[in-house]
Amino acid sequence: MAEAGKVHRATTTAPVNIAVIKYWGKRDTNLNLPANSSLSVTLSQKSLRTLTTATCSESYTGPDSLILNGEEEEIQSSKRTQACLRNLRQLREEVEAKDGSAPKLSKMPLRLVSANNFPTAAGLASSAAGFAALVRAIANLYELPQTPQQLSLIARQGSGSACRSLMGGYVAWRSGTKEDGSDSLAEEVAPVAHWPEMRALILVVSADKKGVPSTAGMQTTVATSSLAPARFKDIVPARMAEIEKAIQDKDFETFARVTMQDSNSFHAICLDSWPPIQYLTDVSRAAMNAVETINRKAGKLIAAYTFDAGPNAVIYYLEPDSRAVAGVFKNHLPRVEGWDNEFGAAIRSNEMGGLDSKAVMTLKNGISRVICTAVGGGPESVETHLVDESGKPVEGT
Amino acid sequence: MAEAGKVHRATTTAPVNIAVIKYWGKRDTNLNLPANSSLSVTLSQKSLRTLTTATCSESYTGPDSLILNGEEEEIQSSKRTQACLRNLRQLREEVEAKDGSAPKLSKMPLRLVSANNFPTAAGLASSAAGFAALVRAIANLYELPQTPQQLSLIARQGSGSACRSLMGGYVAWRSGTKEDGSDSLAEEVAPVAHWPEMRALILVVSADKKGVPSTAGMQTTVATSSLAPARFKDIVPARMAEIEKAIQDKDFETFARVTMQDSNSFHAICLDSWPPIQYLTDVSRAAMNAVETINRKAGKLIAAYTFDAGPNAVIYYLEPDSRAVAGVFKNHLPRVEGWDNEFGAAIRSNEMGGLDSKAVMTLKNGISRVICTAVGGGPESVETHLVDESGKPVEGT
Repeated sequence: MAEAGKVHRATTTAPVNIAVIKYWGKRDTNLNLPANSSLSVTLSQKSLRTLTTATCSESYTGPDSLILNGEEEEIQSSKRTQACLRNLRQLREEVEAKDGSAPKLSKMPLRLVSANNFPTAAGLASSAAGFAALVRAIANLYELPQTPQQLSLIARQGSGSACRSLMGGYVAWRSGTKEDGSDSLAEEVAPVAHWPEMRALILVVSADKKGVPSTAGMQTTVATSSLAPARFKDIVPARMAEIEKAIQDKDFETFARVTMQDSNSFHAICLDSWPPIQYLTDVSRAAMNAVETINRKAGKLIAAYTFDAGPNAVIYYLEPDSRAVAGVFKNHLPRVEGWDNEFGAAIRSNEMGGLDSKAVMTLKNGISRVICTAVGGGPESVETHLVDESGKPVEGT
Repeated sequence: MAEAGKVHRATTTAPVNIAVIKYWGKRDTNLNLPANSSLSVTLSQKSLRTLTTATCSESYTGPDSLILNGEEEEIQSSKRTQACLRNLRQLREEVEAKDGSAPKLSKMPLRLVSANNFPTAAGLASSAAGFAALVRAIANLYELPQTPQQLSLIARQGSGSACRSLMGGYVAWRSGTKEDGSDSLAEEVAPVAHWPEMRALILVVSADKKGVPSTAGMQTTVATSSLAPARFKDIVPARMAEIEKAIQDKDFETFARVTMQDSNSFHAICLDSWPPIQYLTDVSRAAMNAVETINRKAGKLIAAYTFDAGPNAVIYYLEPDSRAVAGVFKNHLPRVEGWDNEFGAAIRSNEMGGLDSKAVMTLKNGISRVICTAVGGGPESVETHLVDESGKPVEGT
């Protein structure tokens, strides 16, 4: 009878990813199928990660629940979360059907507790890591045999870009062509070990308020931008091929150019939407300007900016160029938070950046913190559960 | 002998025009042939005009010369100016060949003096009005029989958008399809009298420095933007048809939407260029935001922003909506220069604009002056010559 009330637990981490070929626009809003393929770099969980514990028990009463960063989330009305849970339960039912001795976890309510190791104030979209951790944690709880690629089909329905956070290294999300979305999944292009020197410096902009939410923004773009169809149909497929080859060849110059061009192309179709959507600010532009100066000084592309649906700049570079790239920002922004982690401490300040004084002033006034990170691995199972053996959330989560 | 040394003179004004369908990209750089058609509103010369006196005389020695706003310009090395002068001289030779008694003006050196009635600091591209006035003044001096449309072929070679400043009202520049450019000319879509209520409020941004010059920028866009071909081929032709009909129908809502969409489309292909070109700043964005607020409050489109190759906002509206549109800006920017002309004095301040406080602050800090103007007529012959009867520039020009 004690076994009957047992709390089953599994805990996993999941990483953030930042796309270099951007996902913006859906071909199917219900199934979360993208208008084009995308490609991202998974970032180290030393800097940014979500930790999620999935639990279930016969002793639980009430519906499934989720506590996110200490706050109860309303998940009953979230079609996306429900789609993930439904799919995972179906897969668990298959396990139970094959093995009569497997406990009937699929019938038990779920209690999920999730926490990020970075402040929400950082302004980073955490839904990718969040849904990846949720799917991975429940898949572990249910002991599902599916591969990360197969699970990516489920995570995609929670949040499109979440499918790319189920793997480490360099990850493509294939748009697929099937109507049911069964070929719209994530795929590892290269593991961390293939090109481990990749670094990312995130410049977090002191944001006054959120811009247009990405789901609504994407729909506006698809419905109204007359420039977007060319991007979906021809431009991104060509860039995917180019950047995948650049990753295979460890050709940073091509990687950098394509990354910057695709960020600009994405923001161009946003501006071309009606009403127009603008995420880049003068601070973003100062960061672009700084990257251009750094590259001009180097005589080649050693830094690449990219911007998601917000003003924060993510700057990719290779570890040997740390001082020439990140060191310039460290010199001008020595007192902002974030230089003190493992990656940041390794960056030597560089007084010879040559940035123009107006860009420096704009960055100083506009950047509230930095995040120093690097390419990293995929989700990891851990034993630091956020729910105790009796089913209660651990204090402080 | 006195007659032999006579100074022949002709003086004309020419207006500024601001495009609502933008010209950005050439299909032939030598002939200044555009990648797409464009359409502009000619602005009143009460607010903005160039005044140019063309003179020639047997008594002049040395090469052709031009004094612009009091400064001698080097025109011998300007291929564009030379192309205009060569074409105009050829047309004069035809006149002289037909009429043996016509003085051989085509053989005499030209002295040209030109002055704007607005400060260069206003940051307005004056090349359109400048080349239109130059061509019109010399055509008058030479007593050429050509129509404004025929002369637009010549002005176009000086500065593309100059061809649209040879006419008043609503003016199209047809891209044409011929290789020699003989069908790439300006055409009146509607005269001022058809829709005289059109007003324009120009918000001049305190500029730190010039952005990318438009000739170089256009070449970058044509060579590198993967989104631009769709704009040139399909998007602009459809918009030209839509906005011409809107002008014929005096349908301001369609005029406004297409104007704003086309400005955004132009800046989108700039951002999509490599390296990216960005003319819009946070001040421009605050102006867009203000226009969106004004339109939302009105429940329909009563104001339309458009931006050329710089951060200045041009806001079109109809005279009956003066208070609802321009009055909002007058309320928040009462002390900036420019409200005191005929058009500006008619605008009643409006305290009920409903702009958000951040946009207001950005506008207050970023706008250095306003220009209040309206749709206006084409070049006019005047007798206030900038060169006296002896061939000397008039004091102060």
